[in-house]
Amino acid sequence: MNILIKDAKVILPEGIVKEANIAIKDNMIVAVGEVPEGFVADKIINGKDKLATAGFVNAHTHVSMTLLRSYADDMQLMDWLENKIWPIEAKMKKEDIYWGAMLGIAEMLKGGTTTFADMYGDMEQVAQACIDTDIRAVLSRGMIGAAPNGMQALEENKELFRDFNNANNGKITVMFGPHAPYTCPPDFLRKVVAVSEEYNAEIHIHLAETKGEVENCLKDYGKTPIALMEEVGILSRGVLAAHCVYLTDEDIALMKKYNVRVAHNPGSNMKLASGVAPVPKLLKAGVCVGLGTDGASSNNNLDMLEEINLATLLHKVHNLDPLAVPAFKGVQMGTEYGAKAVGLKDVGLIKEGYKADVVLFDLNEPQCYPRHDLISLLAYSMNSSMVNTVLVDGKVVLENKQFTTIDEEKIKYEANRCTMNLLNR
Amino acid sequence: MNILIKDAKVILPEGIVKEANIAIKDNMIVAVGEVPEGFVADKIINGKDKLATAGFVNAHTHVSMTLLRSYADDMQLMDWLENKIWPIEAKMKKEDIYWGAMLGIAEMLKGGTTTFADMYGDMEQVAQACIDTDIRAVLSRGMIGAAPNGMQALEENKELFRDFNNANNGKITVMFGPHAPYTCPPDFLRKVVAVSEEYNAEIHIHLAETKGEVENCLKDYGKTPIALMEEVGILSRGVLAAHCVYLTDEDIALMKKYNVRVAHNPGSNMKLASGVAPVPKLLKAGVCVGLGTDGASSNNNLDMLEEINLATLLHKVHNLDPLAVPAFKGVQMGTEYGAKAVGLKDVGLIKEGYKADVVLFDLNEPQCYPRHDLISLLAYSMNSSMVNTVLVDGKVVLENKQFTTIDEEKIKYEANRCTMNLLNR
Repeated sequence: MNILIKDAKVILPEGIVKEANIAIKDNMIVAVGEVPEGFVADKIINGKDKLATAGFVNAHTHVSMTLLRSYADDMQLMDWLENKIWPIEAKMKKEDIYWGAMLGIAEMLKGGTTTFADMYGDMEQVAQACIDTDIRAVLSRGMIGAAPNGMQALEENKELFRDFNNANNGKITVMFGPHAPYTCPPDFLRKVVAVSEEYNAEIHIHLAETKGEVENCLKDYGKTPIALMEEVGILSRGVLAAHCVYLTDEDIALMKKYNVRVAHNPGSNMKLASGVAPVPKLLKAGVCVGLGTDGASSNNNLDMLEEINLATLLHKVHNLDPLAVPAFKGVQMGTEYGAKAVGLKDVGLIKEGYKADVVLFDLNEPQCYPRHDLISLLAYSMNSSMVNTVLVDGKVVLENKQFTTIDEEKIKYEANRCTMNLLNR
Repeated sequence: MNILIKDAKVILPEGIVKEANIAIKDNMIVAVGEVPEGFVADKIINGKDKLATAGFVNAHTHVSMTLLRSYADDMQLMDWLENKIWPIEAKMKKEDIYWGAMLGIAEMLKGGTTTFADMYGDMEQVAQACIDTDIRAVLSRGMIGAAPNGMQALEENKELFRDFNNANNGKITVMFGPHAPYTCPPDFLRKVVAVSEEYNAEIHIHLAETKGEVENCLKDYGKTPIALMEEVGILSRGVLAAHCVYLTDEDIALMKKYNVRVAHNPGSNMKLASGVAPVPKLLKAGVCVGLGTDGASSNNNLDMLEEINLATLLHKVHNLDPLAVPAFKGVQMGTEYGAKAVGLKDVGLIKEGYKADVVLFDLNEPQCYPRHDLISLLAYSMNSSMVNTVLVDGKVVLENKQFTTIDEEKIKYEANRCTMNLLNR
């Protein structure tokens, strides 16, 4: 199917905004600018007074935790985990995982997120939700190597790969998901490395999220988490590393050497009071930094435009440098860099030859006036409720703020029902 | 006129949420809970599936600067001021001030802000915009004491007081607005103190916003800005102090002693990389801390729910304490405390005897599911575009996201026209 988005204000790869047409053939952008000769559109979308950006890439989340949104807030980390999150997670069943994922995906699509990288249990349920919503996703089975079911989880990650890697017309890819160095002993991680080699798959892992974690790692292994990951062979496998809050200069050099890609989660790091990741330093060193929301119980939404905004603001004040992360850099982290971070090569830009993941924002709210600089408006002034139209892989999934294919009311109803059952279990 | 808001989920003063009716007689809340016997509503608003909160109080802004939104971002402070903001401000005419204010007020009302405290020039234009929109406001004429027009500005602030204090059925009050210690020499400030005594008016001033400002103050006067303000008599006058980023423990003790109220501006302080105000310390000391957006050229919106969210997140990560500013404290800062900060006694709570400034949020977006904790949802998950209905002083100004009295399209058109003229001037 051919789609033509006419006369939109398009954020181009180099960071300028130009009024242009976007021509889409099947799942691909075939032209940005003039309509190509001979291009006949089956559908025309009016882009007038709309800002077009590549779909956001949520580079790190646990989407099924959307069921736990606002369940436990304003607590100390271990109190929160031990007394609230882990006990309720232990009671979650397959249908909770599925409807939690459906709720989170609905929220992401409505807010302009067209790709997400996820790590959780019962991932075939999440994969099914991705297929049912047609969102692009990079899935991994979260594995606690130290738990009794560690090896079983590795088997499940293998099965996930066999069943879903490259599924739904290539919109799903699968990584291996060892949770973190503090939950996965080196021996387990070496097994994951071997399996990931066998499957030619990459690895999604939490690294250096809290100060205590890094201190314990130094005490237990005499190495930082990053250095330990080099030793066990994880870094050689292609890594999407979530958080990376506490890093030494040597860590950053290693990350650059192995092309480790970071999923920075400013909202979660702020809310859980983990700390501030050295993002300007990482960017300066040439490390790829995407953005993630983390799960909805530590954020508490899956709003990527908010993460872009937080990333631009947080590093300015933390480094006392108003140029630390400029507006366009934030947008790149939420789109182009995020796509690279999750291992996708032709996603994250509005550019000929890229997948047609496109978001159109309404520009008619007072917050969008006057329009001295549209990228500035997007990063600093607008919010995700201004998303009007969303295309994933060339398919219009949201039009005039309404889903074209999925039943939002049913999703909210079922997610609510699952939540009530979960609380009463 | 009697208005009944039926069956809303109401955030009560003590921080619990209860399904209740809100009965409004003229400009006053007369009951929260059961409908009072004999109360006959002229208008009923269905509050089902809506969250009711007191209207937000934007305790510090420069609303006419909304015309400069996205005009100059990602710059060093002095470069920004000297090469961009001051030159264009010098070209602003009365109609720019008026339409800039109208645009900002439209944005504020749509986002649930029902009161704002402003400081700028040509304030009679801002006052007129307040009258034309029926928003509640606390206005002050910004005065640069060191400028050639310092004394004239003081005369204009007097005139503003005489013309507009208690105007528009009491919805406008007037303060005196000496800009800051670094722009107003002690002699000028003493004159302001004398005038504010004569007029029995309070004072709105920027204090201790940047590190350099405090260092210069110590160098020039041997005192911190707060201590200097005590010496010249400002603190005795009742003070709304914007920013207060750099404070000593002695400063905080002085602020408590004189009941100085703070307008904390997390978004602006982050974007301009000013620093992080010691908000948990101020709250612990019993200092009243409200929230403000600052002007739209340093934020870049007038979105108070975003400021609530930023206030809760920023102080958690800055203090590495996930309990630093909990969700409800953030909401209080945006409502109750803000009202106290700007000197209003019966504003900022949904409570019998309080002014009927009420906001209803739609709860039907995916971000609002599930609903374990509605205050948590408001502070951490929702956004200002979910505002459905807004009452100011008992008058419905926004209903189903549409203005009932003001012409939003005209405002955007005129603000744009003024901006174009300003750029070509």
